[in-house]
Amino acid sequence: MKKLINAPDDVIEEALTGMELAHSDILKVHRNPNFITRSSKTRKGKVAVISGGGSGHEPLHGGFVGLGMLDAACPGAVFTSPTPDQMEEATKAVDGGAGVLHIVKNYSGDVMNFEMAADLCGEAGISVESVIIDDDVAVKDSLYTEGRRGVGCTVFAEKIAGAAAERGDDLKKTAEFCRRVNEVGRSMGMALTSCTVPSAGKPTFEIGADEIEMGVGIHGEPGRERMKQKTAHEYVQMMGEAVVSDIPYKNGDELIVLLNGMGGTPLMELYLLYNEFEQFCKAKGLKIVRRLVGNYITSLEMQGFSISAVKADEKLLALWDAPVHTAGLRWGI
Amino acid sequence: MKKLINAPDDVIEEALTGMELAHSDILKVHRNPNFITRSSKTRKGKVAVISGGGSGHEPLHGGFVGLGMLDAACPGAVFTSPTPDQMEEATKAVDGGAGVLHIVKNYSGDVMNFEMAADLCGEAGISVESVIIDDDVAVKDSLYTEGRRGVGCTVFAEKIAGAAAERGDDLKKTAEFCRRVNEVGRSMGMALTSCTVPSAGKPTFEIGADEIEMGVGIHGEPGRERMKQKTAHEYVQMMGEAVVSDIPYKNGDELIVLLNGMGGTPLMELYLLYNEFEQFCKAKGLKIVRRLVGNYITSLEMQGFSISAVKADEKLLALWDAPVHTAGLRWGI
Repeated sequence: MKKLINAPDDVIEEALTGMELAHSDILKVHRNPNFITRSSKTRKGKVAVISGGGSGHEPLHGGFVGLGMLDAACPGAVFTSPTPDQMEEATKAVDGGAGVLHIVKNYSGDVMNFEMAADLCGEAGISVESVIIDDDVAVKDSLYTEGRRGVGCTVFAEKIAGAAAERGDDLKKTAEFCRRVNEVGRSMGMALTSCTVPSAGKPTFEIGADEIEMGVGIHGEPGRERMKQKTAHEYVQMMGEAVVSDIPYKNGDELIVLLNGMGGTPLMELYLLYNEFEQFCKAKGLKIVRRLVGNYITSLEMQGFSISAVKADEKLLALWDAPVHTAGLRWGI
Repeated sequence: MKKLINAPDDVIEEALTGMELAHSDILKVHRNPNFITRSSKTRKGKVAVISGGGSGHEPLHGGFVGLGMLDAACPGAVFTSPTPDQMEEATKAVDGGAGVLHIVKNYSGDVMNFEMAADLCGEAGISVESVIIDDDVAVKDSLYTEGRRGVGCTVFAEKIAGAAAERGDDLKKTAEFCRRVNEVGRSMGMALTSCTVPSAGKPTFEIGADEIEMGVGIHGEPGRERMKQKTAHEYVQMMGEAVVSDIPYKNGDELIVLLNGMGGTPLMELYLLYNEFEQFCKAKGLKIVRRLVGNYITSLEMQGFSISAVKADEKLLALWDAPVHTAGLRWGI
């Protein structure tokens, strides 16, 4: 294993310290248990929005803590759910009296641990709403997951719910926007290579020099099919069809799109893939009205990409366009 | 070779189209010859700032075209200098009557072709100043280069000269700021893996499973030493010492720092490395006052990182902090 680390056991602690040093204007790292909050306290009466999950998907989630997006993020060990006490302490730390929204990617450990934290916070008198993101159309059940996995649409959910909370929407309305994103948002990924979890020391899966994994999960979970490598055009046709037909879409629909790198994919290739997806949408009568192209939800050094799309409407677009100031996403400020 | 492309010959054209589609609010791609300009014309009387070089280093340079940074960028084939007609046409397209600054990374082909373009534009009555960036302390001469290579400090040069031009500094002053950045800026990189140029179809260099290349160039050129792999701490000590001792520095100096990923390095590792560099600087009595952590000047899918540092002063910091709105760097807007 070749990695730019010291001891595998210290990766998370050292990376969190580096993140805090790099972005001290935006965020603050709390220890024992680990969670990341904004550098400033939650405005009284503002709904707080929290997410979390295993580390190794950066910038998700810590990179989305800041004005207009998350109030806190709970990083677990690499590809491992955070523990309930992380979410409990984070929830208590950022509650501004108007309740807290938990955005949870659909993995069994995450769902269970967020639920335990929500119960404990409820007993302490904090209103908590939870929204589970399960946008991955690749497979129905998977390693670590019952039902669909939660992947790229989490970025949309965090941006849109975060903007709703920031402008003063109440907890019910903020949660509704988050659920709406999940209802009309779909994703699918693929990988050229595996990733290596530092503590494991060897690739998560083996893959041939001419093979790819279509529908891969963000922890290297198996997808729909192991296949011989194809062209960018063919990948985008397959994945694009799987994503948009599942939304479902009709001619003239508008989309917010994430063309996402898995961590080890050059930006040049992501732009090339984005071009393919624009052409694909045009042929379907779909219009991309907003987009992100880059590494937003990654799988360590995995090479590959994913497509996420959410059907846009006026309300979602207003929230998408609202100012945001985080380490991973910034505009309007 | 596994890549997310169609035909290797079409990579640049398709990636440029995707880039333009993704960022049509910021930039425009011109064809035959290829160059990228801002979507709006140069303000009359504003100095224009241009850079360019081989593709495969994205977001450099096209990702830095936009308000407060470059007026145009000229992308060559992958790892190949752009041709003189690209720079000539770009210069003519963005000249606002106040002259044009060429920011040139020190590679023989780039230097020669930018020089030819500058001569042709001079004959056409456009004032051109050229600044050559040669900040890589790793080796003196290299493949493709006489003297030191131009690497990460190019990002600082483009931001700072771009801000000077944007606020209305004249050509001489804008070029002076650019030269100043090069005088007090230094860089060094390392690689865990090679990259593969699409048209070559095989890795640029071979490297053992337990080896790294210390001082690697951004095209995979050899560095100072092929060595057995070490810890992140050891890499940062070696590279940090090489960079700051060459500036040179004195106790209490302030730095603007780029902790840069080579394209295939996870953000988690870049944050971990940034922590190491902060500790290194603290021990030397150096203070990091601004920083970027991420992929800013890459080598396709190479895994590795580089450290760039420029000695800050009040004037450079004011220019650094000025608003910027590009695909790769954005703040204040």
